[in-house]
Amino acid sequence: MSRIAMEGKVLSENERVAAELRERFHHNQMFCANLISSPGSGKTSLLEGTLAGFAPEDRVAVLTGDIQTDNEARRLSGFGFPVKQITTGGACHLDARMIQRALKDWDLGALDILFIENVGNLVCPVSYDLGECHKIAVLSVTEGEDKPLKYPATFLKADLMILNKIDLLPYVRFSLDLARNNARKVHPEIEIIEVSCTTGQGFDRWRQWLEKSRANVSSLCLA
Amino acid sequence: MSRIAMEGKVLSENERVAAELRERFHHNQMFCANLISSPGSGKTSLLEGTLAGFAPEDRVAVLTGDIQTDNEARRLSGFGFPVKQITTGGACHLDARMIQRALKDWDLGALDILFIENVGNLVCPVSYDLGECHKIAVLSVTEGEDKPLKYPATFLKADLMILNKIDLLPYVRFSLDLARNNARKVHPEIEIIEVSCTTGQGFDRWRQWLEKSRANVSSLCLA
Repeated sequence: MSRIAMEGKVLSENERVAAELRERFHHNQMFCANLISSPGSGKTSLLEGTLAGFAPEDRVAVLTGDIQTDNEARRLSGFGFPVKQITTGGACHLDARMIQRALKDWDLGALDILFIENVGNLVCPVSYDLGECHKIAVLSVTEGEDKPLKYPATFLKADLMILNKIDLLPYVRFSLDLARNNARKVHPEIEIIEVSCTTGQGFDRWRQWLEKSRANVSSLCLA
Repeated sequence: MSRIAMEGKVLSENERVAAELRERFHHNQMFCANLISSPGSGKTSLLEGTLAGFAPEDRVAVLTGDIQTDNEARRLSGFGFPVKQITTGGACHLDARMIQRALKDWDLGALDILFIENVGNLVCPVSYDLGECHKIAVLSVTEGEDKPLKYPATFLKADLMILNKIDLLPYVRFSLDLARNNARKVHPEIEIIEVSCTTGQGFDRWRQWLEKSRANVSSLCLA
């Protein structure tokens, strides 16, 4: 069997499990977002700022993926919401089976929002459907405006691009317009929100986006 | 055949081709460095600054890998040295066969140094030997000090870590000491050079490292 055929088989098995997850999320009217970016783009900082903005009674949880270490889970567990680390032990992405296993002992009926923080990798994670409602691409302004053109699959499949670290704009050569145009060349309908996890700038728009997506979960998320 | 067995077969075929490449590089006394990092860590900027420092008669060349676009090759071809783009068309890493194909019409006897700029990905490229003398991990100070712990394979196999974008240190929370310690936890003998491609700081040490590695190519690089 060729490598490509084997890869196809692995992916179609993933699709099957992802469809089960999607059905389960839908059944529980739970909104799930899958965050994808390079290492160091600020996914964990974004989630820290996001969790800090929820009220204690909000029904939100996080699964966070890493090849090694449970740093993320430790950073995120201080907010009082359920957080679980998935350590992939070498794999460069999360797959649907890992999500299924991690959710085994969680009651999804008790959750409204589930964030999945994928392994830091702008290439591989996008090929693995996790049953999520939306993929979100996070790009920081220190990485260069060309990334949507160089890693098009992630930006094509993401419904939202978070442009992070905008507090660093005065110190780097980075054109917001060019980055936006590059993202829209790949995916004309992509939504774009600029944020800084250091200053909190843009978090109002990000929270509105979450609120809107949450409200539309029943109509939008059963792909 | 299981996926792991298939992956093993792909990797051992890669080892075979990489050994041929290594023998060919050694035969030509050519020094080859394989640069690995996240997207946007500054591999291309590092190479721009590096090529700018060579004299026109220096015998240096670059292979640069990307999933899509030939932006890198266009940025690097203005220095008068041979540059070739490898577009992987989806693959998340360069493999030895891609290098072999790209070098087919180049006379390695006419080169002293070959830089290979890998696909921007801190996970997968390290599994693919390209016959290089040294792997070099590039980490920028905007990415966080924890990356060597979270992506240990790359920092374990790299002989040198370039800490890039140190001109941004005043504007980000990043401890050079912690980053160095984390890299040395994974790989106690790793060399570390701090640079800024914007100010040129640290390029003297990086050039000395290249010079030393070049001089030792016959004794060090036939693994």
